[in-house]
Amino acid sequence: MTRVVCPGSFDPVTKGHLDIIERAAHLFDEVVVVVLVNESKKGLFDTEQRMDLIRRSLRDSPNVTVDFYAGLLVDYCAQNGVDAIVKGLRAVSDFDYELQMAQMNGNLTGIDTVFIPTAPDYMFIASSLVKEVARHGGDVADLVSPVVLNALDAKFGH
Amino acid sequence: MTRVVCPGSFDPVTKGHLDIIERAAHLFDEVVVVVLVNESKKGLFDTEQRMDLIRRSLRDSPNVTVDFYAGLLVDYCAQNGVDAIVKGLRAVSDFDYELQMAQMNGNLTGIDTVFIPTAPDYMFIASSLVKEVARHGGDVADLVSPVVLNALDAKFGH
Amino acid sequence: MTRVVCPGSFDPVTKGHLDIIERAAHLFDEVVVVVLVNESKKGLFDTEQRMDLIRRSLRDSPNVTVDFYAGLLVDYCAQNGVDAIVKGLRAVSDFDYELQMAQMNGNLTGIDTVFIPTAPDYMFIASSLVKEVARHGGDVADLVSPVVLNALDAKFGH
Amino acid sequence: MTRVVCPGSFDPVTKGHLDIIERAAHLFDEVVVVVLVNESKKGLFDTEQRMDLIRRSLRDSPNVTVDFYAGLLVDYCAQNGVDAIVKGLRAVSDFDYELQMAQMNGNLTGIDTVFIPTAPDYMFIASSLVKEVARHGGDVADLVSPVVLNALDAKFGH
Amino acid sequence: MTRVVCPGSFDPVTKGHLDIIERAAHLFDEVVVVVLVNESKKGLFDTEQRMDLIRRSLRDSPNVTVDFYAGLLVDYCAQNGVDAIVKGLRAVSDFDYELQMAQMNGNLTGIDTVFIPTAPDYMFIASSLVKEVARHGGDVADLVSPVVLNALDAKFGH
Amino acid sequence: MTRVVCPGSFDPVTKGHLDIIERAAHLFDEVVVVVLVNESKKGLFDTEQRMDLIRRSLRDSPNVTVDFYAGLLVDYCAQNGVDAIVKGLRAVSDFDYELQMAQMNGNLTGIDTVFIPTAPDYMFIASSLVKEVARHGGDVADLVSPVVLNALDAKFGH
Repeated sequence: MTRVVCPGSFDPVTKGHLDIIERAAHLFDEVVVVVLVNESKKGLFDTEQRMDLIRRSLRDSPNVTVDFYAGLLVDYCAQNGVDAIVKGLRAVSDFDYELQMAQMNGNLTGIDTVFIPTAPDYMFIASSLVKEVARHGGDVADLVSPVVLNALDAKFGH
Repeated sequence: MTRVVCPGSFDPVTKGHLDIIERAAHLFDEVVVVVLVNESKKGLFDTEQRMDLIRRSLRDSPNVTVDFYAGLLVDYCAQNGVDAIVKGLRAVSDFDYELQMAQMNGNLTGIDTVFIPTAPDYMFIASSLVKEVARHGGDVADLVSPVVLNALDAKFGH
Repeated sequence: MTRVVCPGSFDPVTKGHLDIIERAAHLFDEVVVVVLVNESKKGLFDTEQRMDLIRRSLRDSPNVTVDFYAGLLVDYCAQNGVDAIVKGLRAVSDFDYELQMAQMNGNLTGIDTVFIPTAPDYMFIASSLVKEVARHGGDVADLVSPVVLNALDAKFGH
Repeated sequence: MTRVVCPGSFDPVTKGHLDIIERAAHLFDEVVVVVLVNESKKGLFDTEQRMDLIRRSLRDSPNVTVDFYAGLLVDYCAQNGVDAIVKGLRAVSDFDYELQMAQMNGNLTGIDTVFIPTAPDYMFIASSLVKEVARHGGDVADLVSPVVLNALDAKFGH
Repeated sequence: MTRVVCPGSFDPVTKGHLDIIERAAHLFDEVVVVVLVNESKKGLFDTEQRMDLIRRSLRDSPNVTVDFYAGLLVDYCAQNGVDAIVKGLRAVSDFDYELQMAQMNGNLTGIDTVFIPTAPDYMFIASSLVKEVARHGGDVADLVSPVVLNALDAKFGH
Repeated sequence: MTRVVCPGSFDPVTKGHLDIIERAAHLFDEVVVVVLVNESKKGLFDTEQRMDLIRRSLRDSPNVTVDFYAGLLVDYCAQNGVDAIVKGLRAVSDFDYELQMAQMNGNLTGIDTVFIPTAPDYMFIASSLVKEVARHGGDVADLVSPVVLNALDAKFGH
């Protein structure tokens, strides 16, 4: 039985994230989506909201659960019997940074990282761009799930 | 008749920017240089000054105008009948980010983005480096137009 | 009036190429698709066939013509009053090489190069991969036009 | 139950390949190492030798088998109930090409590709460099398994 | 006689930095490690501490000295008869930015920059990651010298 | 006393190569330019001609000598008391490959590699492009020294 984590800030979860999570759920026995809490950086949604939006955006995925963590990801993995970290890769600059993180994490505890390339249609979707577009009233219906679309509309008062 | 925009923060305009604008003016019927206003980030020059420095730095370019916008670039384009966005490319990391923006903008409204590579002599010129050098009294005469040089001297009291 | 060229080996033309050509035709007054002939490298289709497949794959595009050339692209441009070279960009490694070519061409005759990013759905389509898949009987109907599909079927005897 | 393939030319298998295979064997239920046969390109070892060297280099790995294939990898996957393709990633240029292949393969049959980053100590090991060093009598004992070292010595008559 | 500088923020110095400094000390007559002071950005250690940690981490290196500077690196080089700047390179994204800085510095005063690639075992070590791991109580003994390890423990109260 | 090598195929030497060699000659006590002989790949000039063109293109450089070698570069370095390999870097794709070679060479014998970035004006000059332009009668006077220009003219009969 293989348990993996899909870590991220998910502020908010996008269709690109959901695609990676669902493909991981197809390949591994258990997938835990972990919202990483960064106390020094206030986001748009709080941790509870981010977790709730992920849960409600996922289609029927019995082997996916959602959690959060405020410390080092490798500590979460050690405490929860996680076999590998799964990350989506969109672009070369992603890869460069993620490779560094993967090697650092491997050095710290021996944990593996596995990369899944983002589908072509989702390669340009970043949470930061989604928020900027939504803030100015742009249409992000293609980029996020309906529940996230509603949550963004509520935030920005459209 | 093709109308394009050259968007940027232009804080301040450099010889690299001017090279891209003038090459765009050679290829397209109308070029609008658009200073994008980011209200959450105070720069060195205010929007009016940035526009004024661009206008006074451009050599005789009858088909170039200068404007500003505080919202989404794609909305500006839709409101002003713009056919394409023109961006200069200096380096691979530029390309990675700009490709993501181009695909996001194309997804939002179907607008095209066209990239013009920066000339070799200007590839290392970034507004942020120009400001850092000028702040410490370094010589940036090769990097900006004479009017921007004067404006930097006035700001930093040299 | 601006005349541009879209150069390439087009062995054979793909949906990715066609997307770039049609977007160039929207932005510039005249587009000449130029099949570059490399005498030392035998391809799958000969020059005449490549030109014919491009012509028959293009949807109604009154301002696009198809030509071929066996020498330096910059010489073709000088002889034919071309204002700029248009290239599609799929990936970072494309960019690195194309930037070098663009700067070399600019140094030789002052000609500009303009890059148009490939649409997300076409970013993975390379003529070499298309041929390899078709050779083994794989389905490339999503990757090339119907006339190219037929020509590949005829070549590989499916 | 998840079955994955580790494809490659493996001419010959290196410690970098073995590291990826063993990490895949830890994460997935069944791993098939597939030697891809390229009939137009003669290598150093023939297909039988490559497979034999992989088998004898693998440490006790009950869920790993070795196979070969001369057609499209996606066809092999469809015929053998494979859930995903696993590739090692060493460098950014690897990523750029492998991402293109992954998206092409996903487009052809919907198969997923999963990337595992090479460990820092193995990032510089390419089969082509190993052969070049061995051909000139250089010491590659750190780069390949003892059985491959012997096979290279036999080939090059050291 | 050739004098070079190894500039950086060194907050704190890592084993990756030390590797570059010691390799520079092997190749050049005099090496000056320069802590660049950025007054607008408070770090974990102050300038004096950073210099002290570098001095105490270096193994016997008679041709290495440690200094600091608050202005432009090129001005420091001009004032101190420095022949070249030495930088470690870890990843492609490093290279892209450092190439831009090297060309800017060369344009300002003609000074050369020389890059030394980081050893594979140190490629993933960034001061920012070291601090984040140490802050959460992770083990960074492989990443920094014993004196830096003690200083981090003292800061974070472990 | 530090001795370095500048290795390459130099078929033929370009202004980009000469710039790197002269900058290395400024930083190190002795520079040996080594023409690497690849017996399986016939070039435009033979080894003697390549060495002769380098010697006659170098401006007064008393600490530069020219040599050739047909084996592994690391063996040449070990036999000749070389302290480091010096390579020019033009682009990100150069870096990716050269980093791999540098780590391989360091692994084989412990030898260091030092990278010098190419000056902006020379970044697009590759020997292969120079030959292609010269073959078609293009003007490469900006790209190579006068003696190489003459040699290319003689080869291609202009």
